[in-house]
Amino acid sequence: MRLWGGRFSGETDDRMRRFHDSFGFDRRLYAADIRGSVAYAAALLRAGLITDDERAAIVEGLGQVKQEFDDGTFEPLPGDEDIHTAVERRLTEIVGSPAGKLHTGRSRNDQIALDVRLWLIMSIDQVSALLTGVQSAIVDKAEVHSGLVMPGYTHLQAAQPVLFAHWLMSTFWMLERDRDRLADCRRRTAVCPLGSGALAGNPFAIDREALAADLGMESATPNSMDAVADRDFIAEFLFAAALIGIHTSRLAEDVVLYTSPGYRFLSIGEAYSTGSSLMPQKRNPDSMELARGKAGRLIGDLVSLLTVLKGLPSTYNKDMQEDKEPLFDAFDTLMLTLPVLAGVVGTITPHAEAMRAALDEAMLATDLADYLVRRGMPFREAHHISGRIVRRAEERDVPLSALALDDFRAESDVFESDVFTVFDFDSSVARRAVTGGTAPEAVAAQIDAARARLSSR
Amino acid sequence: MRLWGGRFSGETDDRMRRFHDSFGFDRRLYAADIRGSVAYAAALLRAGLITDDERAAIVEGLGQVKQEFDDGTFEPLPGDEDIHTAVERRLTEIVGSPAGKLHTGRSRNDQIALDVRLWLIMSIDQVSALLTGVQSAIVDKAEVHSGLVMPGYTHLQAAQPVLFAHWLMSTFWMLERDRDRLADCRRRTAVCPLGSGALAGNPFAIDREALAADLGMESATPNSMDAVADRDFIAEFLFAAALIGIHTSRLAEDVVLYTSPGYRFLSIGEAYSTGSSLMPQKRNPDSMELARGKAGRLIGDLVSLLTVLKGLPSTYNKDMQEDKEPLFDAFDTLMLTLPVLAGVVGTITPHAEAMRAALDEAMLATDLADYLVRRGMPFREAHHISGRIVRRAEERDVPLSALALDDFRAESDVFESDVFTVFDFDSSVARRAVTGGTAPEAVAAQIDAARARLSSR
Amino acid sequence: MRLWGGRFSGETDDRMRRFHDSFGFDRRLYAADIRGSVAYAAALLRAGLITDDERAAIVEGLGQVKQEFDDGTFEPLPGDEDIHTAVERRLTEIVGSPAGKLHTGRSRNDQIALDVRLWLIMSIDQVSALLTGVQSAIVDKAEVHSGLVMPGYTHLQAAQPVLFAHWLMSTFWMLERDRDRLADCRRRTAVCPLGSGALAGNPFAIDREALAADLGMESATPNSMDAVADRDFIAEFLFAAALIGIHTSRLAEDVVLYTSPGYRFLSIGEAYSTGSSLMPQKRNPDSMELARGKAGRLIGDLVSLLTVLKGLPSTYNKDMQEDKEPLFDAFDTLMLTLPVLAGVVGTITPHAEAMRAALDEAMLATDLADYLVRRGMPFREAHHISGRIVRRAEERDVPLSALALDDFRAESDVFESDVFTVFDFDSSVARRAVTGGTAPEAVAAQIDAARARLSSR
Amino acid sequence: MRLWGGRFSGETDDRMRRFHDSFGFDRRLYAADIRGSVAYAAALLRAGLITDDERAAIVEGLGQVKQEFDDGTFEPLPGDEDIHTAVERRLTEIVGSPAGKLHTGRSRNDQIALDVRLWLIMSIDQVSALLTGVQSAIVDKAEVHSGLVMPGYTHLQAAQPVLFAHWLMSTFWMLERDRDRLADCRRRTAVCPLGSGALAGNPFAIDREALAADLGMESATPNSMDAVADRDFIAEFLFAAALIGIHTSRLAEDVVLYTSPGYRFLSIGEAYSTGSSLMPQKRNPDSMELARGKAGRLIGDLVSLLTVLKGLPSTYNKDMQEDKEPLFDAFDTLMLTLPVLAGVVGTITPHAEAMRAALDEAMLATDLADYLVRRGMPFREAHHISGRIVRRAEERDVPLSALALDDFRAESDVFESDVFTVFDFDSSVARRAVTGGTAPEAVAAQIDAARARLSSR
Repeated sequence: MRLWGGRFSGETDDRMRRFHDSFGFDRRLYAADIRGSVAYAAALLRAGLITDDERAAIVEGLGQVKQEFDDGTFEPLPGDEDIHTAVERRLTEIVGSPAGKLHTGRSRNDQIALDVRLWLIMSIDQVSALLTGVQSAIVDKAEVHSGLVMPGYTHLQAAQPVLFAHWLMSTFWMLERDRDRLADCRRRTAVCPLGSGALAGNPFAIDREALAADLGMESATPNSMDAVADRDFIAEFLFAAALIGIHTSRLAEDVVLYTSPGYRFLSIGEAYSTGSSLMPQKRNPDSMELARGKAGRLIGDLVSLLTVLKGLPSTYNKDMQEDKEPLFDAFDTLMLTLPVLAGVVGTITPHAEAMRAALDEAMLATDLADYLVRRGMPFREAHHISGRIVRRAEERDVPLSALALDDFRAESDVFESDVFTVFDFDSSVARRAVTGGTAPEAVAAQIDAARARLSSR
Repeated sequence: MRLWGGRFSGETDDRMRRFHDSFGFDRRLYAADIRGSVAYAAALLRAGLITDDERAAIVEGLGQVKQEFDDGTFEPLPGDEDIHTAVERRLTEIVGSPAGKLHTGRSRNDQIALDVRLWLIMSIDQVSALLTGVQSAIVDKAEVHSGLVMPGYTHLQAAQPVLFAHWLMSTFWMLERDRDRLADCRRRTAVCPLGSGALAGNPFAIDREALAADLGMESATPNSMDAVADRDFIAEFLFAAALIGIHTSRLAEDVVLYTSPGYRFLSIGEAYSTGSSLMPQKRNPDSMELARGKAGRLIGDLVSLLTVLKGLPSTYNKDMQEDKEPLFDAFDTLMLTLPVLAGVVGTITPHAEAMRAALDEAMLATDLADYLVRRGMPFREAHHISGRIVRRAEERDVPLSALALDDFRAESDVFESDVFTVFDFDSSVARRAVTGGTAPEAVAAQIDAARARLSSR
Repeated sequence: MRLWGGRFSGETDDRMRRFHDSFGFDRRLYAADIRGSVAYAAALLRAGLITDDERAAIVEGLGQVKQEFDDGTFEPLPGDEDIHTAVERRLTEIVGSPAGKLHTGRSRNDQIALDVRLWLIMSIDQVSALLTGVQSAIVDKAEVHSGLVMPGYTHLQAAQPVLFAHWLMSTFWMLERDRDRLADCRRRTAVCPLGSGALAGNPFAIDREALAADLGMESATPNSMDAVADRDFIAEFLFAAALIGIHTSRLAEDVVLYTSPGYRFLSIGEAYSTGSSLMPQKRNPDSMELARGKAGRLIGDLVSLLTVLKGLPSTYNKDMQEDKEPLFDAFDTLMLTLPVLAGVVGTITPHAEAMRAALDEAMLATDLADYLVRRGMPFREAHHISGRIVRRAEERDVPLSALALDDFRAESDVFESDVFTVFDFDSSVARRAVTGGTAPEAVAAQIDAARARLSSR
Repeated sequence: MRLWGGRFSGETDDRMRRFHDSFGFDRRLYAADIRGSVAYAAALLRAGLITDDERAAIVEGLGQVKQEFDDGTFEPLPGDEDIHTAVERRLTEIVGSPAGKLHTGRSRNDQIALDVRLWLIMSIDQVSALLTGVQSAIVDKAEVHSGLVMPGYTHLQAAQPVLFAHWLMSTFWMLERDRDRLADCRRRTAVCPLGSGALAGNPFAIDREALAADLGMESATPNSMDAVADRDFIAEFLFAAALIGIHTSRLAEDVVLYTSPGYRFLSIGEAYSTGSSLMPQKRNPDSMELARGKAGRLIGDLVSLLTVLKGLPSTYNKDMQEDKEPLFDAFDTLMLTLPVLAGVVGTITPHAEAMRAALDEAMLATDLADYLVRRGMPFREAHHISGRIVRRAEERDVPLSALALDDFRAESDVFESDVFTVFDFDSSVARRAVTGGTAPEAVAAQIDAARARLSSR
């Protein structure tokens, strides 16, 4: 049963049917579709288009259809081209004639727009919860190792010492922005398109504000042609997902590096590593490599949708059926990736000795320049002097602290014997106590702020 | 003068210099860079690192540098590898030694992060203002032609009659979401990274909250490693820009269609059309085609940045210098496109006769089904009957209203002689009076709501 | 059974297993995997690493495994993390100890590289065959309607008359380039990586040239580290697929336009159209809209892979497991789309009257200018004069041929009474008889050339 | 002077002019544009449309225009909306009336298609030459350090020892495929569209094959509507460029890693490194980071064009003007990046001691398994035994060679005292002597093959 057969005389080509039908992937919208129909039945009742009994029959029938989907007993027929058709067909079988009234003034155009919005609202909540899980794992791990110092890198070159907890927390804030973006996206998603008809609006004086309220949405869409055309909320979710992927990929890159033989700053649980079919000694951080790779997939999903939408005429065009597969793929990817990420973070074991061994006094060259600054020298001059001292130590292949005071004074007589107090990694870290800095007290405050965020939503 | 020469003995390769230096494009950040330095000088004063006189000298010197940029008299030297170096070099020439103190505790890593944020805040405001301009043009044009009926399409097939004003307003709401997204992006951009140093935080007890407040920002970034690594705000702007591009492309597609010989529903001003070098009769809607094409460019800019960021190690990596050219390109593209779009909308002349001629009574088939529904028939059955009547009319090649009452009654005896009242396009439009519908009163309310939005920000 | 368990003590996390395992999608490589193993067994025999009997047992066992996959009776176990593991596990069950020798000197790194190449070679052949099918449908259709004249458009504005067959054939050549690109991609795919080991090469003196020859490949990869890292051939296929998508989308756009109510130049079979659940009169070209939308998906698949590969360290990284899903998705998309496209082309019915009605004499303005050129006037001057005459006719709202000779002569006294012979659409078409032009004889030659191409591969 | 003014009465809006005009970027096509016009003048002469004198005047005038562009003395006027207009305008000033004949039967649609093809052919040759430069630098460097052994990694975990030369050569073959792809692209670019007119073909019996031959192209495009619509060759170049970017990014990633403090296997010349404005000790591999980032830009350029083309109607649409900026950007990016890459490769200094120090005997675990295999044990069993021995050594924190023979025999009595000969990195490397393997002799053969490729084109 195609919903639109009346005017047609021929049959749909079989290859066309496979090409066209969306039930294979949009069936997962069933709960949203049924929820929307329950609300629409109430709206039809309010508008006097169906009776109380009809509404009751419809709602009960829809409940049964939902149960069948929930139980996996729903039996699709070849004509079930999409979720709307499948539900309406089955409802008709169950309740008969009232089912035929449910589509009054409604089009699949406003119906699918609603279904995807309802589904996405729930899905955003699930993704946000998983993000929170990763964030909690980060904060927990950071707290456990609160005083541990490690080398900090820029350009992957040794830069300055930082706290392990500070490094780890840097990912927390990336994910916090992601949750923030998802919340914005959720707000723009929770606008009700139902009652827009195919494009021109509902002709039966449906109360769209009441409908929106019934569905837990804040308002009704303000223009019916835009309502059936708008897929911004999907694009916005896909963008948020792509950024989550990028953030994940950056953490993953660090973990891959820091577990590699050149660094060995960390290890991750065996449960998140795998071996080699050829090389018996291997322990590969596959989980993190895959997480890094997933960023590509998520970016691809975003590009798919943006390209589909580009240059489409107004209102609904069938191209837009291509919105759902990237959406589902991105959601599924996040649902798979984020728990693994939380698991990996939870099993991270930092190796203090390797970190300490990698701390090189040249990373204190800025502190050496700052020493001069504190004694009144302009920074730019101090930077040059410190640079020359680094070169001097390098040429002799000794650490900075192995130079003699005379070596320092050869470059500037501002240096006094207290210059050697500079060469302490913990002090260097402790000096960076501004908001957001790596000093233990600043990181403790940062962790407090993070916990407050987690408990605020 | 390279800022970092102290430790180096050799020279930079010339090809490397061209490859590496960013002054060619980041010079447009000069105002933001100088504004940031003025604020930083105040912060250094508060922290006791410079004197009041030094601060005054710095601020005055920076004022002069800014003036030189404003006037176009700034003379770059070969060593000016980026905007920070250029400004500091010139400031040193002007004020001497205090200039050397300005970089105290500051890194180009936190400096560039600040500069781009400051620049972007201003740029978002400019783009939003241009969007408002397009929206105003839309509302104005919609109001002038408030009663005009045109064919509405889905799948580019005749669907239902709609108001021209309703069609036009559908773009208003797309752009309204764009403004909303830009506002969210602006909020996340207005967080101050200055005081994060290269990666570990500022060691001189700078008051970062005061610094943020001085720069009109709401808060300071909470983690210094994230602060120098974060380019989310740029990605978010590029995404918002890409969606603006998509919305523009959809309006453009409609205008190209509606000015094409098959439709001729609209014409746009000659000022926004061009001719052919070969075919004397041509009048091409180049402005709208280009606007449609720009969506591709904006999507490309977004992909560029996302791909650059994917898989980068934490903190700053030089790859991130590649953030600015897509950002500037997207901004410039919008600054060029949106005024033209506003101009085009302002010159749109709808052709009522062509619209009326294209209104086909088959577009009232849904109204015909609704006629039956209002008389108690379930919609699904009514839809089939209406479909059969459409086929009947099509086979005889006559409009629906040319069928006899008997033809209608042959399909259903619910039909009475009043069925012919259905075949009125204005009535069809008027029936869709729900919120967001195409009825004149609903569109009037929609326009009021739009005006209220425009005046609310 | 994980292939790599020896060194591991713990268990893999369940979420990790779902995240990591690829058998769910790479099982479709089974035939390629088994074919590669059969060849490898021969190579091991040649190198003296297994006996003739062992080889025979392996080959027979592999044959049985393949049969199980073919029949759908293969029963996966939880440990079957990928297709290689699954096949090796099952082979071990069947033939016992010789199975354990099959992986000698082989790694899953070179094995998967081979499998995907073998699979892709077959898949390219399938896609090429489908392209040929579309091309044949185009040529057939073009031949049937060889003399039909329609309006040609640029910028979607009326430009010059062209043959319907010429318009249709323009897509033929796009697809011909696609076939050409696929052939290039196939050539670069048919290089054998087996014998590269994990990264360093096979230590058992395998004859890699013989192995390549056994597998129908032209040569062996020249560097083992590159061999396991290279996914260029997949990217190249995805690019070729994206361009096929773009070509398809352009044809689809034209068909959507030309079947729309403003044009009605064509209709396509009902088997490739669908109706509306709300509007009984609708007949939507869904097949073509979907085909247009698929271009977005194909571009997204390409971007996914490119982004995954960007910035990866050399050799194999697990991120590369993300190469297969976009590849399979692109292939499946083409396998679904192209037959529908061929079907649609086959059912195109051109409507000669609508085409003729849309031919506007202003489309002959270039011919009018050419008239002057043939009488010695420089084209640029002739173009201006012709433009002024078009404006004159437009102002009077008459066709060009309704102007009086005096009107023409008022612009140039080169005009003689034979000017009215210009206003004939068939003559205009016939004049464009150069190679690639729209004249019937040129199109006939074009069709001959096309047929020759089709039969040459 | 707009070329198309005849029919227009109004003026172009100034914002529109900036939006629309392309002379700002397409002026770099001047040499191609002029070369095409010189050939077209010859074609007009052959067709009897101009005299020998007119042709001579045109050619001489075009020579002068080219000279002005070459010298930088060409003075654009506001009306020069694109390169074609600019050249024709200036030619008219120089030679008068014959200039007006040059556009006979020609459209800017076929003209721009030609110009870009001619430009791209030259540009491909330039890029290929630069690739050759990088490849030569690779081969030279590989030869100098032909015996040096370093750790090879997969998943960034220690895998097996390889030759430094082998690692470096792995990039050679990536770039070789790039050159191959560029050659294919060049072949598809070298097809002449001139003579296609605006869309319908040239009406003046131009000999298009002769025209193609004059321009050094192999054939003429077979369909005029496709000829003005086709931008595949640009997309193909952009794809080839994106893959070059990816290859470059992978080499860059390795260099960034191997120069990082965890590895220090390499250093690159100071000329390709930069320092830090804050941290005096830093030496950052900026050149390689930027090269890695450029991959994002190149992928973005590709996506821009693909998205622009998606869904366009047939023939020329103004959107296609957006093809040139991504093309030029990609070309410029390669022209900047590749010489730097060649420079960096030339200055790579491998640090043999650091490499040797990083060679860990666990990397010989596969060789240990192979030892068993050579004594008749199935590989799968040998792999497990070797894995257990690795774990045993790891638990005692000793290298494999420090285990006692009894330890080996505890796992398998196949082990004899000669097992200790396995623990030699050079032997391990030498065993992988198959084609493409890392053994010195295989690498020498590989280098010979590479040299042969370089000299063959």
